[in-house]
Amino acid sequence: MHKKVGIINGPNLNLLGQRQSDIYGDISFNVFLKKLQDKYEGVDIRYFQSNIEGELINEIQNIGFNMDGIILNAGAYTHTSVAIGDAVAAIKCPVIEVHISNVFSREDFRKFSYLSSVCVGQITGLGLSGYELALRYFLEL
Amino acid sequence: MHKKVGIINGPNLNLLGQRQSDIYGDISFNVFLKKLQDKYEGVDIRYFQSNIEGELINEIQNIGFNMDGIILNAGAYTHTSVAIGDAVAAIKCPVIEVHISNVFSREDFRKFSYLSSVCVGQITGLGLSGYELALRYFLEL
Amino acid sequence: MHKKVGIINGPNLNLLGQRQSDIYGDISFNVFLKKLQDKYEGVDIRYFQSNIEGELINEIQNIGFNMDGIILNAGAYTHTSVAIGDAVAAIKCPVIEVHISNVFSREDFRKFSYLSSVCVGQITGLGLSGYELALRYFLEL
Amino acid sequence: MHKKVGIINGPNLNLLGQRQSDIYGDISFNVFLKKLQDKYEGVDIRYFQSNIEGELINEIQNIGFNMDGIILNAGAYTHTSVAIGDAVAAIKCPVIEVHISNVFSREDFRKFSYLSSVCVGQITGLGLSGYELALRYFLEL
Amino acid sequence: MHKKVGIINGPNLNLLGQRQSDIYGDISFNVFLKKLQDKYEGVDIRYFQSNIEGELINEIQNIGFNMDGIILNAGAYTHTSVAIGDAVAAIKCPVIEVHISNVFSREDFRKFSYLSSVCVGQITGLGLSGYELALRYFLEL
Amino acid sequence: MHKKVGIINGPNLNLLGQRQSDIYGDISFNVFLKKLQDKYEGVDIRYFQSNIEGELINEIQNIGFNMDGIILNAGAYTHTSVAIGDAVAAIKCPVIEVHISNVFSREDFRKFSYLSSVCVGQITGLGLSGYELALRYFLEL
Amino acid sequence: MHKKVGIINGPNLNLLGQRQSDIYGDISFNVFLKKLQDKYEGVDIRYFQSNIEGELINEIQNIGFNMDGIILNAGAYTHTSVAIGDAVAAIKCPVIEVHISNVFSREDFRKFSYLSSVCVGQITGLGLSGYELALRYFLEL
Amino acid sequence: MHKKVGIINGPNLNLLGQRQSDIYGDISFNVFLKKLQDKYEGVDIRYFQSNIEGELINEIQNIGFNMDGIILNAGAYTHTSVAIGDAVAAIKCPVIEVHISNVFSREDFRKFSYLSSVCVGQITGLGLSGYELALRYFLEL
Amino acid sequence: MHKKVGIINGPNLNLLGQRQSDIYGDISFNVFLKKLQDKYEGVDIRYFQSNIEGELINEIQNIGFNMDGIILNAGAYTHTSVAIGDAVAAIKCPVIEVHISNVFSREDFRKFSYLSSVCVGQITGLGLSGYELALRYFLEL
Amino acid sequence: MHKKVGIINGPNLNLLGQRQSDIYGDISFNVFLKKLQDKYEGVDIRYFQSNIEGELINEIQNIGFNMDGIILNAGAYTHTSVAIGDAVAAIKCPVIEVHISNVFSREDFRKFSYLSSVCVGQITGLGLSGYELALRYFLEL
Amino acid sequence: MHKKVGIINGPNLNLLGQRQSDIYGDISFNVFLKKLQDKYEGVDIRYFQSNIEGELINEIQNIGFNMDGIILNAGAYTHTSVAIGDAVAAIKCPVIEVHISNVFSREDFRKFSYLSSVCVGQITGLGLSGYELALRYFLEL
Amino acid sequence: MHKKVGIINGPNLNLLGQRQSDIYGDISFNVFLKKLQDKYEGVDIRYFQSNIEGELINEIQNIGFNMDGIILNAGAYTHTSVAIGDAVAAIKCPVIEVHISNVFSREDFRKFSYLSSVCVGQITGLGLSGYELALRYFLEL
Repeated sequence: MHKKVGIINGPNLNLLGQRQSDIYGDISFNVFLKKLQDKYEGVDIRYFQSNIEGELINEIQNIGFNMDGIILNAGAYTHTSVAIGDAVAAIKCPVIEVHISNVFSREDFRKFSYLSSVCVGQITGLGLSGYELALRYFLEL
Repeated sequence: MHKKVGIINGPNLNLLGQRQSDIYGDISFNVFLKKLQDKYEGVDIRYFQSNIEGELINEIQNIGFNMDGIILNAGAYTHTSVAIGDAVAAIKCPVIEVHISNVFSREDFRKFSYLSSVCVGQITGLGLSGYELALRYFLEL
Repeated sequence: MHKKVGIINGPNLNLLGQRQSDIYGDISFNVFLKKLQDKYEGVDIRYFQSNIEGELINEIQNIGFNMDGIILNAGAYTHTSVAIGDAVAAIKCPVIEVHISNVFSREDFRKFSYLSSVCVGQITGLGLSGYELALRYFLEL
Repeated sequence: MHKKVGIINGPNLNLLGQRQSDIYGDISFNVFLKKLQDKYEGVDIRYFQSNIEGELINEIQNIGFNMDGIILNAGAYTHTSVAIGDAVAAIKCPVIEVHISNVFSREDFRKFSYLSSVCVGQITGLGLSGYELALRYFLEL
Repeated sequence: MHKKVGIINGPNLNLLGQRQSDIYGDISFNVFLKKLQDKYEGVDIRYFQSNIEGELINEIQNIGFNMDGIILNAGAYTHTSVAIGDAVAAIKCPVIEVHISNVFSREDFRKFSYLSSVCVGQITGLGLSGYELALRYFLEL
Repeated sequence: MHKKVGIINGPNLNLLGQRQSDIYGDISFNVFLKKLQDKYEGVDIRYFQSNIEGELINEIQNIGFNMDGIILNAGAYTHTSVAIGDAVAAIKCPVIEVHISNVFSREDFRKFSYLSSVCVGQITGLGLSGYELALRYFLEL
Repeated sequence: MHKKVGIINGPNLNLLGQRQSDIYGDISFNVFLKKLQDKYEGVDIRYFQSNIEGELINEIQNIGFNMDGIILNAGAYTHTSVAIGDAVAAIKCPVIEVHISNVFSREDFRKFSYLSSVCVGQITGLGLSGYELALRYFLEL
Repeated sequence: MHKKVGIINGPNLNLLGQRQSDIYGDISFNVFLKKLQDKYEGVDIRYFQSNIEGELINEIQNIGFNMDGIILNAGAYTHTSVAIGDAVAAIKCPVIEVHISNVFSREDFRKFSYLSSVCVGQITGLGLSGYELALRYFLEL
Repeated sequence: MHKKVGIINGPNLNLLGQRQSDIYGDISFNVFLKKLQDKYEGVDIRYFQSNIEGELINEIQNIGFNMDGIILNAGAYTHTSVAIGDAVAAIKCPVIEVHISNVFSREDFRKFSYLSSVCVGQITGLGLSGYELALRYFLEL
Repeated sequence: MHKKVGIINGPNLNLLGQRQSDIYGDISFNVFLKKLQDKYEGVDIRYFQSNIEGELINEIQNIGFNMDGIILNAGAYTHTSVAIGDAVAAIKCPVIEVHISNVFSREDFRKFSYLSSVCVGQITGLGLSGYELALRYFLEL
Repeated sequence: MHKKVGIINGPNLNLLGQRQSDIYGDISFNVFLKKLQDKYEGVDIRYFQSNIEGELINEIQNIGFNMDGIILNAGAYTHTSVAIGDAVAAIKCPVIEVHISNVFSREDFRKFSYLSSVCVGQITGLGLSGYELALRYFLEL
Repeated sequence: MHKKVGIINGPNLNLLGQRQSDIYGDISFNVFLKKLQDKYEGVDIRYFQSNIEGELINEIQNIGFNMDGIILNAGAYTHTSVAIGDAVAAIKCPVIEVHISNVFSREDFRKFSYLSSVCVGQITGLGLSGYELALRYFLEL
């Protein structure tokens, strides 16, 4: 049976490729996602993006009880959202926190994450490769 | 005339009964609400839940000028939302802050509330009974 | 058999009704207690007040192994007494922390409680009604 | 060609005129906006208000690449939203942060803004005039 | 009619003259008190000392509604007792906080006082003269 | 009758145009002032600059009882001077705090102002235009 | 001549053996004391326990000028009592601070002691043996 | 021989009687000084006021080696001036710090003084009487 | 030509498999390393472990100018070593920080890393798989 | 069978007797150790000292699985070494932390220990006797 | 051509030789300066001292565009003056910060300098030699 | 007789000339040392470098009792090593702390030094000249 993995992106990640390319690179997430789905065609990869904190919670709740894993880049909400952290803690499937840029070499407020302690682990600073490495982790589990 | 009391629940409280039952108990809020409405049938109890911070604000604004009281469990937004606090301060009716679990014996970030100083009072750690005790407070006012 | 509930009041609560009535209301605790005992005559309500921290500890130890519940308003000691917190943790019966005024809208040092994490729960800001609501919680347990 | 300027208001600013008039004054924003549009009829002034953080981000993204300037009063989200700050940093047009009341003479948590460092500047405490002064800044650029 | 002024000394001040004389001087408080009463024989000076926090509160409550002033050196409780501060705030007569040594040139924890904000004023570091100066203040009021 | 507005500049602002032009621009304040006076010739604009904190206080006291408004850029003293803040609080006329650069995107110690809470409002980061916008505010009051 | 050593126990230590036995062990202090006195019969061991902070100060003052040493477990007052620390500093004989449990592996507020800097030394976490080791220290001095 | 005592007043104290009379009273310092000099005509009372920090230092240095005492109300510089504190520490004569209002019941930044640890003592909150009490202290030394 | 990747392990990682297996798993690093080298036999994987901070620095300096990447698990030195961070910053090749356990759900002092800001990125909490994922990142670069 | 106890001393303790004798006393550790071994000749006492943090870890690992107890005075590393703390937590035998001087009456940075929470207990300030008392604890276990 | 170096001394340094000689030595700065000028007669050494912060700024501005270097001992203003730091940053010539005493072994507030980050470097604790060493640095540049 | 001065360099200073040349310059320390020894040939200059904290301590102990002075650049250990500070305090000869770069204009964690308070003084930010200036200080003592 196919493994099912969700990718959830938070605020402003819809601008990827348009926005500060020195920090976030210059390809859009959709282009990346297409490649990923092609490369891992035996995997059911479900994608969701929203700028609204509560919609991210809704999606985590919706898929969190029947996925094999969730790859979560909550963007700026990483640093401010107790509520998303609570959603992660409430569901059944493991979650890996991913950040494209190295948040630890940026502003101080990006160094704290409400998600880290409730996620399985964290991949940071490895660009879009972080999503693929997280995916492999779930596939090889 | 019937007293009107609103109950507003915040993020992840829709999972009550499904989620970490050691902390939150194992009955769903809807079951509890039904019993409450049956027991206090002379009271007009209006219920609203959302995972979206701004929708909680919308509801507080909508009902806050013509209820006799609001029972507000803003869940994780309690600890991060200046905006919900501002909504509570802006409306006319008194608000009681309720928490099911004893937030003071959990993580440090759950010990601070942006709502406490603008609510009338707070009932914490008494499980679902907290909602009923708050209701009685409004009825006996 | 009658339920037994202790009410323990800390420093300066003997001045209730005399002292800053805008914060604490204008009826004395004895008048309130009498009404409460009349209303709940099937309950054995034991009352104790002291301005001395250690005497509050003595009383908590004395009644804490054979009451159905203690309602504790430790007044200013709430914010400074590790020792009372230890007494609450050492005994058998559940304790509810009550505050007449909304301590969260007053000085910063009133926002921290050494008791909250070891009590079952907390009722704050609901005036003398807080004592009655706590009592009902124990009765309906 | 007409200059285009967006005005974006955050949570609870829809209550302007109804809510704490000692702090925020007593005319509604729509009345003010109408006057502003009449006075500056050669300017294309686009208005948006929402209580939902993510909808503010959506609007900033929508108009941020083809306006001459944005006047942003993010209300309470000013103090808690890394995500809105990121949206401001991601877009092309300059943003001025406006606050009606003098946030520096209110609660401590209103003294910090996640937006200030990514906006061009800030106009605070000058009431609704702040919006007009910001508008003039963009017109005279 | 005679003015009535209370002097209340807190913990370890009964050791005055015996204890660290480089900090506190070498005459006992009783000797000093006797001289003071002789010098101001038209004044009713009431003296109380205890090492027990709650007994200081009891005394403040007892005399606080019918004295012309209280001179309070709460010793070490100055830095830790919210409860004594509450007692001072609850009574009618003005209170002056006195310290024999200059607490501001000693350990950091002696620099904060829970009493200062509720007392009329403070005389610090002027030795036993501080008591006499405070007395004169009340006499000349 | 002519409106009277004072402009007071603090330390190092006499170097404007000479000093770090990437932060402060490259025209001197005198040139700017001349233009401003020409443009608003019906207004009595009084200018004062000093590098000495106390002379700024002297000037604030001198003009603060008979101006229609003061535009105050206290430069570095903004962040360290309780005394200038006290002078602003002591006088009769309203004061607007102006900063040429966006102090919120610079060193941390520039983010705090002792003046903000006692001024009417603040205009920051809008370059020399900030002075003109503040002037208009006073004219249109 | 017999050596004289005082043992002073603070709040809640009268519950030893009854209270949280996983932390404090399950024999009462009186049983332990009896054994200790039997084993060291040539030593005059004086014991005192109180839940009242000021009574502990009284006892320290009473015996502190003619003992060879005091073994002080001030319990929870360790972390909050400047006054007991002052008493220790005021007396003549050396004092060793003893804690039964390892306070450094418990709540943060138990990690600070107002007594440590004025005592000779500290024995922590070695159970009731801590009292005996302290005793030997005084005997072998 | 006459005793010589200096009174030095810092910033904004020249406005006494004009400025916030609810905090500082409504008589000017010169009127008060005149009365003081009349009452204590055997004392050489030298008065100095400046809004300039460095001029206060100059005066402290000038008179600090041949006065019997200095009464120093450094106003707002109290809270920010290491330099005045250093001047006090450098001179020979004793200095008493005086504040007219109770600085401990005002803004937080008024609670810290760079002068307290180097002055002999401090008289706070007793209005203009504070100056007279300090004077008596020097006279009776 | 073969890619060259260094793996450097810090203090106590030589105990892997022996030490707290609930946190760190139960296979030794040598067993894991052997498997990794077998699986990626076309890669030159160099391994080094030391409990001595300076020896880790020596190794980083030795291999840091001619490897394609370094996988660094500095163990406890992660949280305390500025010196290792400086070594990482001084060399030419990219470094990925790896942690076996989720350091963000453990003690507070494990949440800060002196290495994160100078490494390319970080893989945390994914067990020994973290090393393999980091390796793949370097291979696919 | 003989009990086996290890004594491990950290940095600068090799200078004992040479170094600041007012703090550390004037006999060398070797002299003391010889006396201790003579007095407790039935015990196998193994001694190790190093100035190198990692060598202390090596020794803890080497002896930590087959000693009856370790007496650890990690000197200055006490306050900075997470790595030594991890070694203590990783081994099997109990460890007592010993300090010759009373670290709590010295610089602030000596008041925190990374070892205390993972050791059984701590003996501080009792000079070289601390080692002997710790030894007795292990012998009488 | 002669090198030109300015020496600027801040508050209370005019008392050198008179003031706390254990900290600052016992020769006056003028005596020292004379010797320095004699020894380095080929150098144009300009000296300025003031107790007034703004006059130090004036001097820094006056000489800062045509000296080869400035040696600045801002005394107590080092720790409080953003404005002097801004003046240093605004000028052209390099500035070395000098302190006679070792500020790092004195009060905590002397450990922070607003000047250090904008000066070239800092010489501290080497007495009056610090001025000469700084001078040599500029000469040998 | 020749003066003897030790130079001790800490971690990563062996890379000088190779490593971040914008911060540390581009000549190696050995080249510099050779020049220094040639220039001051009458001085016995002993050099030691190690990346291992404890070896730096060993060297400080070895030479610290018979040198005329030590010039210590402990590199990154400056900011984290209590142990090196203790070694400096334990020896007889004076130590000057040197830093090549201006540590006060870099990361916050480089602003604190455990060595400053126990060294005689500090020369910072003057490049390799700092070593020579420190040497001269010892020679001219």
